[in-house]
Amino acid sequence: MPAEFFDWVARNIESKESVVCVGLDADADRIPAHLQDYDLPRWAFNRRIIDATHEHAVAYKPNAAFYEDRDGWLALKETIAYAHGKDVPVILDAKRGDIGNTARKYAQLLDDADAITVNPYMGRDTLEPFLSQEEKGVFVLCRTSNPGGADLQNLTLESGEKLYERVAALADLWNSNGNVGLVVGATTTEELETVREQVPDIPFLVPGVGAQGGDAEAAVEFGLANGVGVVNSSRGIIFAGEGEQFDKAAGEAAKRLKKRLNQYRD
Amino acid sequence: MPAEFFDWVARNIESKESVVCVGLDADADRIPAHLQDYDLPRWAFNRRIIDATHEHAVAYKPNAAFYEDRDGWLALKETIAYAHGKDVPVILDAKRGDIGNTARKYAQLLDDADAITVNPYMGRDTLEPFLSQEEKGVFVLCRTSNPGGADLQNLTLESGEKLYERVAALADLWNSNGNVGLVVGATTTEELETVREQVPDIPFLVPGVGAQGGDAEAAVEFGLANGVGVVNSSRGIIFAGEGEQFDKAAGEAAKRLKKRLNQYRD
Repeated sequence: MPAEFFDWVARNIESKESVVCVGLDADADRIPAHLQDYDLPRWAFNRRIIDATHEHAVAYKPNAAFYEDRDGWLALKETIAYAHGKDVPVILDAKRGDIGNTARKYAQLLDDADAITVNPYMGRDTLEPFLSQEEKGVFVLCRTSNPGGADLQNLTLESGEKLYERVAALADLWNSNGNVGLVVGATTTEELETVREQVPDIPFLVPGVGAQGGDAEAAVEFGLANGVGVVNSSRGIIFAGEGEQFDKAAGEAAKRLKKRLNQYRD
Repeated sequence: MPAEFFDWVARNIESKESVVCVGLDADADRIPAHLQDYDLPRWAFNRRIIDATHEHAVAYKPNAAFYEDRDGWLALKETIAYAHGKDVPVILDAKRGDIGNTARKYAQLLDDADAITVNPYMGRDTLEPFLSQEEKGVFVLCRTSNPGGADLQNLTLESGEKLYERVAALADLWNSNGNVGLVVGATTTEELETVREQVPDIPFLVPGVGAQGGDAEAAVEFGLANGVGVVNSSRGIIFAGEGEQFDKAAGEAAKRLKKRLNQYRD
């Protein structure tokens, strides 16, 4: 298995001609009825999604929120192992950040996953246990695609910068191991461009092109650094269809997104 | 059981003459050897800590980081139920914050717990599923006690405010259900005073008086709003002693902290 998360993604981008990341937000309430009787319905669901989409997926991104219970962690472990079997790395979307001894505990979430998303509000020391794992990817939340993303992130500092720009600069500063990425949403095209200009070499994880309706062209144009970066869709792929053919619909949706994004690649 | 988290805390403050919150950071590696053979060592540990400290504790605060695995969630559920049996509410220190469908999923963490800590970086909509549960408490991270807390929180905005001051103002604005609290660390005395002046009616959760060595007097003077607020110690209480007498040492540490803090109460 490759040591470096971003190298692994880069290899997949080349071999699959894709920058698609599939978000595995396996909401137990939306899993098709015929899978509900399995011991671990989320794992049964994810396995079929992975089978149907792995040709087009350069990474998978399970959101931890959907796995935070007794069976959830087991479903997540199985999912990660299965993705690895298909040679696809896994970004755990956990948005963590906490003080020293706690952050070190959270950092164990990377024992299985290959990358993680982290929240910068508590500062560098809370991210250090992730940053120090140099073979793993650490995506720092910068400018998020949700409506409230502007509440704090777009505040103007006395320097004239926006807060999210400062976060990008700090993440660049914290990148001594070359394993930092940024989360920058596709719903904010100008901000994508601004951050890309500021940190030309940091790969982005760009959410928001699916259910949230963001700009696919900007996601590709500004999301990649030296050709490396991922564009995520979660619900737009995994819940593209319903019933027993849900996985077929997911595979088609992943392929469509790949093609849509590839229009804008060099 | 009381409907309102903060009313519950207020009643405990009065009946126990205490503002102590005990942090249940049950690090599996630090649990005494004689409990390691239990099915759920963290639950065995917490039960003894609760037995030894509940006379002095107005709330318990398990940090989610120490329970994020298959057995962990069960240990946490048992712990919460047991604390409730002792008439003590539980603050889940989870520091969450995520977009709509994901935040709603995270909000289920409040099915068992009575309050939660949340991270404001992604803005109001990410906190709404917590804020809307009016009987539960929602502690917004404001100024944290860790070394890196200043990295973002102390940035100066063009208005002249610090970012953490703006977060306090926003939290006040978001408090239409009267269920909002703020996390303000005891390691930053002046900031405690500044935030208290800004939001006179919002209770604080003040970490940092234990292992982190913060200012107990300031924690009490500024942490309480109309007499309501909690001062937390985690490692300083639960790991005060080792071996088979660890719980006795924890009870004594909780009592000592209660007395130390009560010196500064009116």
